[in-house]
Amino acid sequence: MNRLDVTEKIIATKLAKGLKWSDVAREVGLSKEWVTAGCLGQMTFDATQAATLARLFDLTEAETQWLQVVPYKGSLPTSVPTDPLIYRFYELVSVYGTTFKELIHEEFGDGIMSAIDFRMDLQREPDPKGDRVSIVMSGKFLPYKTY
Amino acid sequence: MNRLDVTEKIIATKLAKGLKWSDVAREVGLSKEWVTAGCLGQMTFDATQAATLARLFDLTEAETQWLQVVPYKGSLPTSVPTDPLIYRFYELVSVYGTTFKELIHEEFGDGIMSAIDFRMDLQREPDPKGDRVSIVMSGKFLPYKTY
Amino acid sequence: MNRLDVTEKIIATKLAKGLKWSDVAREVGLSKEWVTAGCLGQMTFDATQAATLARLFDLTEAETQWLQVVPYKGSLPTSVPTDPLIYRFYELVSVYGTTFKELIHEEFGDGIMSAIDFRMDLQREPDPKGDRVSIVMSGKFLPYKTY
Amino acid sequence: MNRLDVTEKIIATKLAKGLKWSDVAREVGLSKEWVTAGCLGQMTFDATQAATLARLFDLTEAETQWLQVVPYKGSLPTSVPTDPLIYRFYELVSVYGTTFKELIHEEFGDGIMSAIDFRMDLQREPDPKGDRVSIVMSGKFLPYKTY
Amino acid sequence: MNRLDVTEKIIATKLAKGLKWSDVAREVGLSKEWVTAGCLGQMTFDATQAATLARLFDLTEAETQWLQVVPYKGSLPTSVPTDPLIYRFYELVSVYGTTFKELIHEEFGDGIMSAIDFRMDLQREPDPKGDRVSIVMSGKFLPYKTY
Amino acid sequence: MNRLDVTEKIIATKLAKGLKWSDVAREVGLSKEWVTAGCLGQMTFDATQAATLARLFDLTEAETQWLQVVPYKGSLPTSVPTDPLIYRFYELVSVYGTTFKELIHEEFGDGIMSAIDFRMDLQREPDPKGDRVSIVMSGKFLPYKTY
Amino acid sequence: MNRLDVTEKIIATKLAKGLKWSDVAREVGLSKEWVTAGCLGQMTFDATQAATLARLFDLTEAETQWLQVVPYKGSLPTSVPTDPLIYRFYELVSVYGTTFKELIHEEFGDGIMSAIDFRMDLQREPDPKGDRVSIVMSGKFLPYKTY
Amino acid sequence: MNRLDVTEKIIATKLAKGLKWSDVAREVGLSKEWVTAGCLGQMTFDATQAATLARLFDLTEAETQWLQVVPYKGSLPTSVPTDPLIYRFYELVSVYGTTFKELIHEEFGDGIMSAIDFRMDLQREPDPKGDRVSIVMSGKFLPYKTY
Amino acid sequence: MNRLDVTEKIIATKLAKGLKWSDVAREVGLSKEWVTAGCLGQMTFDATQAATLARLFDLTEAETQWLQVVPYKGSLPTSVPTDPLIYRFYELVSVYGTTFKELIHEEFGDGIMSAIDFRMDLQREPDPKGDRVSIVMSGKFLPYKTY
Amino acid sequence: MNRLDVTEKIIATKLAKGLKWSDVAREVGLSKEWVTAGCLGQMTFDATQAATLARLFDLTEAETQWLQVVPYKGSLPTSVPTDPLIYRFYELVSVYGTTFKELIHEEFGDGIMSAIDFRMDLQREPDPKGDRVSIVMSGKFLPYKTY
Repeated sequence: MNRLDVTEKIIATKLAKGLKWSDVAREVGLSKEWVTAGCLGQMTFDATQAATLARLFDLTEAETQWLQVVPYKGSLPTSVPTDPLIYRFYELVSVYGTTFKELIHEEFGDGIMSAIDFRMDLQREPDPKGDRVSIVMSGKFLPYKTY
Repeated sequence: MNRLDVTEKIIATKLAKGLKWSDVAREVGLSKEWVTAGCLGQMTFDATQAATLARLFDLTEAETQWLQVVPYKGSLPTSVPTDPLIYRFYELVSVYGTTFKELIHEEFGDGIMSAIDFRMDLQREPDPKGDRVSIVMSGKFLPYKTY
Repeated sequence: MNRLDVTEKIIATKLAKGLKWSDVAREVGLSKEWVTAGCLGQMTFDATQAATLARLFDLTEAETQWLQVVPYKGSLPTSVPTDPLIYRFYELVSVYGTTFKELIHEEFGDGIMSAIDFRMDLQREPDPKGDRVSIVMSGKFLPYKTY
Repeated sequence: MNRLDVTEKIIATKLAKGLKWSDVAREVGLSKEWVTAGCLGQMTFDATQAATLARLFDLTEAETQWLQVVPYKGSLPTSVPTDPLIYRFYELVSVYGTTFKELIHEEFGDGIMSAIDFRMDLQREPDPKGDRVSIVMSGKFLPYKTY
Repeated sequence: MNRLDVTEKIIATKLAKGLKWSDVAREVGLSKEWVTAGCLGQMTFDATQAATLARLFDLTEAETQWLQVVPYKGSLPTSVPTDPLIYRFYELVSVYGTTFKELIHEEFGDGIMSAIDFRMDLQREPDPKGDRVSIVMSGKFLPYKTY
Repeated sequence: MNRLDVTEKIIATKLAKGLKWSDVAREVGLSKEWVTAGCLGQMTFDATQAATLARLFDLTEAETQWLQVVPYKGSLPTSVPTDPLIYRFYELVSVYGTTFKELIHEEFGDGIMSAIDFRMDLQREPDPKGDRVSIVMSGKFLPYKTY
Repeated sequence: MNRLDVTEKIIATKLAKGLKWSDVAREVGLSKEWVTAGCLGQMTFDATQAATLARLFDLTEAETQWLQVVPYKGSLPTSVPTDPLIYRFYELVSVYGTTFKELIHEEFGDGIMSAIDFRMDLQREPDPKGDRVSIVMSGKFLPYKTY
Repeated sequence: MNRLDVTEKIIATKLAKGLKWSDVAREVGLSKEWVTAGCLGQMTFDATQAATLARLFDLTEAETQWLQVVPYKGSLPTSVPTDPLIYRFYELVSVYGTTFKELIHEEFGDGIMSAIDFRMDLQREPDPKGDRVSIVMSGKFLPYKTY
Repeated sequence: MNRLDVTEKIIATKLAKGLKWSDVAREVGLSKEWVTAGCLGQMTFDATQAATLARLFDLTEAETQWLQVVPYKGSLPTSVPTDPLIYRFYELVSVYGTTFKELIHEEFGDGIMSAIDFRMDLQREPDPKGDRVSIVMSGKFLPYKTY
Repeated sequence: MNRLDVTEKIIATKLAKGLKWSDVAREVGLSKEWVTAGCLGQMTFDATQAATLARLFDLTEAETQWLQVVPYKGSLPTSVPTDPLIYRFYELVSVYGTTFKELIHEEFGDGIMSAIDFRMDLQREPDPKGDRVSIVMSGKFLPYKTY
């Protein structure tokens, strides 16, 4: 057994029980973004969080333990994603990548936006011309320092 | 001459004149995100916008014309970016890609967030533990329809 | 179990029962193009459609549920397809890609043809020199907008 | 000098003179799809066609000769295209590739749709919800035969 | 079960029974080249041919059905083959590829040699300095046409 | 200067002078297949052959010397060729690769068909249904030996 | 002109003048590791540092300006480096990558060692059996946090 | 059974028993870096070491034998690692690769730092601004010699 | 069952029985290099050799038959090997590849060293500074001939 | 100017002057293998060696200096070489890679054959059935040690 097996069981059980990620997140007591990422094998749960998930997804003790181990991260099977929804995010990096770079450097100097000290919030943005997906990302700026 | 030559001239002139992207955007009258992407060869300017840029960057008539031609988009030299700042965005797609997918489908059903009918805003988010980069993205949800 | 397992069962059952995609589509009440794509794991069915497919392909309840979950899309095992029939479509993108780009931009300006708000129709086109495959594609034009 | 140089000169001259592909096609007396593909270095012109293009684009004798040589085809710099407009066509091959395969085989048996004995027509399709791109493709079916 | 399973069973049974491809081809009544390709999962058999193969290789009814379904073609596990015998053919394409192109275009104009309307014959060519492999390929020339 | 420069000069001069590969081959006194491959930078000429080519293509002394140096071989810019004519040969390797392997091993045992001790002849094969390209390849069989 | 041109000039001038990286670092007043990385186009200098380098390497004003622009980082031409010295570091990541991961997680929990808030020191370590390269790396641990 | 199976059993048993790598290393009597790499399938154990691990991880005799066979090394599933922690080390090679090269050559001349005659030590480095990961690497310098 | 299964059984049995490749080779009566390559799935055994191996490795009749079938060759899982020992050989090809080419062409003219009519011998070369691996390779030179 | 420019000048001058690598090596006073590798940009010369080469190849002072700088090594343009002569060496690594590994480990235990403390000698081996290329490689065995 490995973490991938636990992820697949969570997905299948969620389907069978008709659960929603937002409900799972509420039970865990954290954001739907972080909890979903964790259930999909990208984050590490503590014992309490894992116990909640064990209850929701009928996990065995071993499966519950796996949720508390840091996983090998990266959720995509190919370096350029084929799924259209996910590809659009890749396309944003491709088209806007140098723009992110220029604007962050202009504002902050040399450094990066952390993908670790990071949080995000994804919401429906009602719009008469068709509702929109709104994503707010916040990552700590980490400067390169001289030494 | 091609669009890439114009992009390189803009970058070099910006450096020589000490211009900032936010100032360029103000002159053009649009967001710094869209204007920077355009100056970096990813968007198409209309005649008025191009004339403004010609003035700012001392462009020739031919160079100004190139700004009005739709470019071949994609700003990165490799499919997995090597630059650490840009890589972090790629990493977000890699780690959170399936999370984006699950949450958007849970909220909207099958479809995608458009990367075309899209806008974004990048700001400094002051924080006592270290300022953060805040990015607000908004893309129209486009549903797959049956036919 | 995952969606791929359901796809493989559908293909095997279709073979064993001697079904045709056009018949399946008629039962579902939609085009053969969309229904086939769905049966091959690229589209999401609603409960009624899934029930029809369950009847035709002897699916279990769990399998029927999987048909209603948005799949991870992309039907090909390699980024450049090896199958000669599918490669010819890839070749069209390779040879005519810049032509599509020039002509759509000339007619519509900067933007794309949607692959989401999209439909198509594939028919036999009788021809005395050898019948032809006729494909009519229709995708909404989505303009890049300034912001 | 090689064909690529001629292609780049044609693009630059088209821009400088404000020509449209549809006008170029009318002068040559063939479809805009084939003529554009040829001007972009993917098709071979005969002497008369090349002379017309030489007049329109101020080509030298050597450049005019290159238009009559069969080019090394393939118009894209990477095997997975980065440009969003062209990527959407790649995505159609990725998502619908196995569907094309199933439906053509169901109708015709084993074989392919030719990408050589092929023609296409790209038009604007007016639509109150937003105009659409309509593409009609027609390729001869070529059967595999036993021997 | 899928076509690959049938291919593997055919190979194992051929080994266990000590069959030769040339004998299999004689039973089927077609060339050893086409029949071998078919048994290796690259061609589609009709009902009579499949019945012959079922007898030779002890196939079940389901396996026999699979032989009559058009397979996803491409027999190699990597885009550049590692097997020395097969690599030599890849090397011929690499070294002589532009020569094939120049000579076919010189003789026929713009177009291709079909890999679909194609047949070939592989024979031993006795030679006192060491016998040779002789391969005669014949593919229909398909011209690009203007439209 | 390197061999590639000489190849490009040969191609341009051939175009400007209206030469044909078959005429060049006749002057050199060898097959059109070998001579074309050599002119395209894949074979090595001796002094006499190089002198003939120098006369035909107006080569300088240095250029003539380069023709006598063994080139770095491989005529294609990508490992999977994009040009449709050359791709068809790649497709034959992909589809028939394992068939070549099985039939050569059945006839000769373990070993390869040499791509070095190799010759080929490409001819037009008249056919009422459309002329065909006929290619006869002959390569020495080289057995693996035990040691 | 771009940053790469400045890097190449620095390397050529260093060679012509017989400078050593450790001397350059002493003039700049920082570690040889950071200064060398900067001179090789991977770090950003401030005005004073750039002025020092301009004096040492005879840089023009424009070249000196480029040193103060954040570069597109990544110093290697291929994703797997071919140079044996650099490959050995890649090999360490390949062989010890999962070990780094296990030990850092065991000590710190889920998170990463920063490659931005990072410093290192490379020294000769005398050893009777052959001197050794000693590298001390120090990177801030950045924890993933829940949100 | 192969070494990978043993690695997976070790990881699962370590989880079930709540062992720590540092404890395992103490039992084996070697550094935690080398022992962890070995348990993860990258190093070869002698009989005594293997016996200790067999006791700790409840290994069978066959599993214990596998620990004493030299493994096929390389611990990562892709050539560019997707896991953020491991990627940071890859990024260090990418950004600092040419710096390692320049400084080692400046100090030692042409040669490499051995990744075989190599040891390392990973420790927590307390820091009021946030603890750091400290890694000390020591590899023998191996000079290229003339011959 | 396929050849890979037989290879894995041989490796596991060799481990369980404590056999050495040199002993296996002595039993077969051929060099350790060729016999090892064959046992690892890269060469084809005759009936007598296979019977010897069947005895040594307790192979079934079907497994023994597989040893007499020409395998699909290529023993490495990735095109650039990750295992350090094997990578060093790849590095020799990378660093010395053009040197091999120049020296063989200087001595023999255009052609190759055969990897088929090839033998090699690997021995320990005692050396007071540390024993060395000595490999003697001998491959027939195969000249390109004109035709 | 960089090392590649010097390599190209050496190759062109060698051709123009009709020099042989073995003569160059005799002048330098070292083996033809090492000297050729150095002239092709893979090794570093000392001042005396560089002066000899400067005389032979009419190098400028700057070019002579470049010969004394450690180059970025790796002589091939693609990770899998296309040149048939060099590919055969790659094929040996592919086919015999695991055999090298097994036999070296059987003789020496865990470790590698150094590609740095390495020498080789390439000679013509007369043979009545066709002369052979003989290559003797000698690399120091470097053991992995525990720590």
